[in-house]
Amino acid sequence: MAEQPQLHGRKLGDRRVVVDRPHARYFRYLGPGVLEAKLEAQAPRTAQQRRMATIRGLLFGRPLSSAAELTERLPKWKALPVFSSDVMSSVAYATGAMMLILVGAGPDTFKYVLGLSVIVVALLVIVTFSYRQTIRAYPNGGGSYIVAHANLGVLAGLTAAASLLTDYVLTVAVSVSAGVQALYSAFPALEPVKVPLIALSILLVMVVNLRGLRESGTLFASPTYIFIGSMLLLIAVGVFRSLTGQLSQVADVAPLTGVATESMGLFLLCKAFADGCSAMTGTEAVANGVPAFKPVEWKNAQQTMIIMATLLGIMFLGTSYLAVNIGAHPAGFQATGESVLSQVGRTVFYGRGPMYYILQISTMGILILAAQTSFADFPRLSSILARDGYFPRQFALRGERLAFNSGIVALALVSIFLVVAFNGSPDRLIGLYAIGVFTSFTLSQSGMVRHWFSGRGPGWRRSAVINGIGAVVTAVVVVVIAISKFDQGVWVIIIVVPILIALMLFIKHEYDLEGRGLDVAPDVVFGPPHRRQRVVVSAQAMSRAVVQAVKVGETMGEEVQLVHVALDPSEGERFRERVERQLPGVRVVLVESPYRALVRPFVRYLEVSQTEDPDRLTIVLLPEHLPRHWWDRLLYNQNVHRIRAALVGRKDFVVLDTPYRRGA
Amino acid sequence: MAEQPQLHGRKLGDRRVVVDRPHARYFRYLGPGVLEAKLEAQAPRTAQQRRMATIRGLLFGRPLSSAAELTERLPKWKALPVFSSDVMSSVAYATGAMMLILVGAGPDTFKYVLGLSVIVVALLVIVTFSYRQTIRAYPNGGGSYIVAHANLGVLAGLTAAASLLTDYVLTVAVSVSAGVQALYSAFPALEPVKVPLIALSILLVMVVNLRGLRESGTLFASPTYIFIGSMLLLIAVGVFRSLTGQLSQVADVAPLTGVATESMGLFLLCKAFADGCSAMTGTEAVANGVPAFKPVEWKNAQQTMIIMATLLGIMFLGTSYLAVNIGAHPAGFQATGESVLSQVGRTVFYGRGPMYYILQISTMGILILAAQTSFADFPRLSSILARDGYFPRQFALRGERLAFNSGIVALALVSIFLVVAFNGSPDRLIGLYAIGVFTSFTLSQSGMVRHWFSGRGPGWRRSAVINGIGAVVTAVVVVVIAISKFDQGVWVIIIVVPILIALMLFIKHEYDLEGRGLDVAPDVVFGPPHRRQRVVVSAQAMSRAVVQAVKVGETMGEEVQLVHVALDPSEGERFRERVERQLPGVRVVLVESPYRALVRPFVRYLEVSQTEDPDRLTIVLLPEHLPRHWWDRLLYNQNVHRIRAALVGRKDFVVLDTPYRRGA
Repeated sequence: MAEQPQLHGRKLGDRRVVVDRPHARYFRYLGPGVLEAKLEAQAPRTAQQRRMATIRGLLFGRPLSSAAELTERLPKWKALPVFSSDVMSSVAYATGAMMLILVGAGPDTFKYVLGLSVIVVALLVIVTFSYRQTIRAYPNGGGSYIVAHANLGVLAGLTAAASLLTDYVLTVAVSVSAGVQALYSAFPALEPVKVPLIALSILLVMVVNLRGLRESGTLFASPTYIFIGSMLLLIAVGVFRSLTGQLSQVADVAPLTGVATESMGLFLLCKAFADGCSAMTGTEAVANGVPAFKPVEWKNAQQTMIIMATLLGIMFLGTSYLAVNIGAHPAGFQATGESVLSQVGRTVFYGRGPMYYILQISTMGILILAAQTSFADFPRLSSILARDGYFPRQFALRGERLAFNSGIVALALVSIFLVVAFNGSPDRLIGLYAIGVFTSFTLSQSGMVRHWFSGRGPGWRRSAVINGIGAVVTAVVVVVIAISKFDQGVWVIIIVVPILIALMLFIKHEYDLEGRGLDVAPDVVFGPPHRRQRVVVSAQAMSRAVVQAVKVGETMGEEVQLVHVALDPSEGERFRERVERQLPGVRVVLVESPYRALVRPFVRYLEVSQTEDPDRLTIVLLPEHLPRHWWDRLLYNQNVHRIRAALVGRKDFVVLDTPYRRGA
Repeated sequence: MAEQPQLHGRKLGDRRVVVDRPHARYFRYLGPGVLEAKLEAQAPRTAQQRRMATIRGLLFGRPLSSAAELTERLPKWKALPVFSSDVMSSVAYATGAMMLILVGAGPDTFKYVLGLSVIVVALLVIVTFSYRQTIRAYPNGGGSYIVAHANLGVLAGLTAAASLLTDYVLTVAVSVSAGVQALYSAFPALEPVKVPLIALSILLVMVVNLRGLRESGTLFASPTYIFIGSMLLLIAVGVFRSLTGQLSQVADVAPLTGVATESMGLFLLCKAFADGCSAMTGTEAVANGVPAFKPVEWKNAQQTMIIMATLLGIMFLGTSYLAVNIGAHPAGFQATGESVLSQVGRTVFYGRGPMYYILQISTMGILILAAQTSFADFPRLSSILARDGYFPRQFALRGERLAFNSGIVALALVSIFLVVAFNGSPDRLIGLYAIGVFTSFTLSQSGMVRHWFSGRGPGWRRSAVINGIGAVVTAVVVVVIAISKFDQGVWVIIIVVPILIALMLFIKHEYDLEGRGLDVAPDVVFGPPHRRQRVVVSAQAMSRAVVQAVKVGETMGEEVQLVHVALDPSEGERFRERVERQLPGVRVVLVESPYRALVRPFVRYLEVSQTEDPDRLTIVLLPEHLPRHWWDRLLYNQNVHRIRAALVGRKDFVVLDTPYRRGA
């Protein structure tokens, strides 16, 4: 800290006017005792701080004032890509995933794909209308956590929150991995470095999000709109060609080698349906993010939600219809074969032409961008949880760019951890997606039913029926997914979610305990200090830190007592002699410690001497030698901390650390 | 900390007299302002502390007073096993190791073994007489570090120290591994758990050493003496039988299958000699440990050294003589074949009878105990280095049992790390032993030559010649070992030793820098405080911690200013209103921070307001909420530390931490 404040104006060589009021550069005077800090007040001082600030500026842009929050809000056209990339991206694989299940009972079962798709879209309509009501009822953000917490209680709220948080992490890990897989499918040389590549991609998305919501919305808008555009074109051209009988069967696909190993039955249909439902992950994103919209927030959010659901429905149904019509062969999310969408694309677009490549590349883009929805929602949800005390408080703080930095960074780190743990192939986790989402759907809709019943505003019956249908239907889906996907790892959720809930309850418990311990009753008036006090300084050697502590102590009481625990009696006497010579008026007490303990004899001495005059307060000054480097901690003992730990919080003692650090 | 001091005597129910002077239980009054802490002053208070103390008591025994240091000293009969187990243990393998080298040029080269052994013993005699002089000249411990440091300078001293420290670690890792190998040779089922077994054995030796030197001496005496006894008996019987022509050739040994691959030459002889020299590791132990002897220390140490060298010479020469005579087959330290000593034993003692087994078991014991010499010397050397500032200071502190606990624990941990790193088979490290020892020999003897030349006391020429011969001879050995063993890893030492030296120099540098920064000129007299001061309290919310800080601040100055950095202006106003109501007389300054920084605007405000009246001192009180648990650090922000770091060490500011902790 070699910094020296330059407060009295700039250098004269700068030819600038000398500033008379030193406040003016850093603060705006708002009234008696109220200043507003200018950006300059947090400007870097040292060369190192300046370097850091430059790097931060390049990465994230310059800090935004809290007042800029409103201008950071999203217009609908930006909100749509931010909140819908997750749900849209599932169009790229949901149809194929259903077919991959059904192929177990032979290719002629593919005819059920269209039926299942219709059911999923019906579900989508129900959920959308349910959430439309939620958005209106909770205009400040109506995520499942808030609705369930407010109407069904803490446990329901935390269950919804834990399910969603888990899902967000899974989404980031899986979708970015899938996007990078598309990359190294094209360039196989990259496969050995896939884990660093995935981690790097996640970090990139993280950095963009740390720049703030509006910027990420701008950046991610075009890939999403290109994807939507090419999908709509694909479906329009495909349906037209199909209806006019021009659409041929898909060519150049390896014939299905697998024979039917399972008989067609309800269970298989349920499994396929569960995979289809994964198309709906991300539907709740808009409802969670209402406060990110420009005013009137709820209205814009509702409209965005309807647009999103409409687009999704068209794209999903269209893809399924075309896939069945051209006789596409199944391929899952990250299965090695050609994806169903690719087969549809080259059949509809007359082979591998420009439109086909635009479709393929924008698909890859949307898969990576699916992570963006999580990056928009996870930090928001964790900030709400932090505000309520279920998450560490820093998750509620906005960073320089008004983003919830802690949540963004935490999401990136946890999902990178997942990617590394699964060695860059987290495909096995896909099965886990849907259960979390539908759990939170169910809890949110049930909460809404309760909400309407307790409020009984105009039209409450109709609203309750809509949400009630939503709750029942999504609850059924939860059961279907849980049973049909149990062997594919859904049980992991049963472990992770309760652990998360327990952790959040524990954090809440700690904050509550601490809050009660620190709480000051709001009506007490604290009078002037009324106890006599004595001042004690702990000193093990003569140093500037000790001199500083003594000088501070002398301003607090008439006499300062210096207590020295001596391991070597003769050295102790030398120390006493020196203190008496150099710090006149200070009374030295030597405590010889033949058993070489330093902390406890000191504490015992204080206790014992306190009994001589129990009415007075003992102020203990601990000269602390503040290390300049982390390694200094290994070189100096930590007795100050032990003394502090032994005395702090006791009735007759106040401990003061007097840190000292040598000049640079 | 629910502890409540019970100072005014025991419970009446105990029928004990109420103690009038509360000091009496914990302290002895020695004079005005001087107390001596009784053991009771460091007695445990809480249930948890009591449990820990009980466990410590069981493991290590009750604390010893510093005054007991003298009674902890070793009589010669205990010092011999402590300091010689290392050197003695090499008898178990040195002869075999030489033969294993020579076998490369055919078995008929074994005749050179006896000649090489005579050279090694001659070397031993020279080194012993050299060290005999060193012990007399440095009666406070004349290890190579002290002698080289005092006479040849810092770098020579640290080179000797680093070589020895490395050797001690290697000795512990290798010898304990060898002992455990003997165990799982007998019980092969134990081999899979050899790493934990070795680690456990090292921890056991560590715990015994933490009990203090005297206890470890007692415990380890009998195995050493049994080994010495059986070795002397073996040699006596063997030589007698050999001279009377009764000694047959060794029976039941697989014939040597290897053919001569190398031609006999000087290089091979040098390699064999280098292995023979490993018998001398540990010779310096007595000289390092002079202060551990009972008075007159140097005399007892000299005598012990002579006894040790005599025993070693007899045992080594005798083993080599008998091995050659019975035509033993070579086997190294941890080679899989039957050891040479075992072959000699069963040939001399008429097959595998009781005496043979006593010899074998005591050999295994002495191999493990070789570690004991390192455990006696490493902590002592590191305490000397710590005293001189080259090692962290805590290495110089004696523990409850007067042992240098830090050194003992560090040695155990580092050698366990080595064992784990080499997966329980650190045999490859044997080659590294001798080079370190002989380097320290050379430096120590050269230092002594310099010592005699500068002192020129009576008989200095004779002494200088003796040490000079020692220096030259050991220097030659260093070169021989370095060349012949370079391919066996000696180069590792060339990396490790300089790193250690650099580390020690760095530590010294840090301590010196810090010492200068904290140093108080010894003749300054500090007057009473003469600067006016203002008192500022940082407060982010109303809490008991803040109230405490304000109350303390009020004892230091007339007015206390409370500075609040407000992220939300309306919340800031509410806070001001509350403070003005509950803490009358405190002046509140709100610093609104629209860019949401907390620390820098606070610091800037202090700087700026300091310029208004630069002559006064600003005392900044930081109410610190002291966490009760480690995880609380994750739940509360660390702004206090950042404010402290920004202000501490600056001219016009004194920072005081006022820690607060909620009651239990």
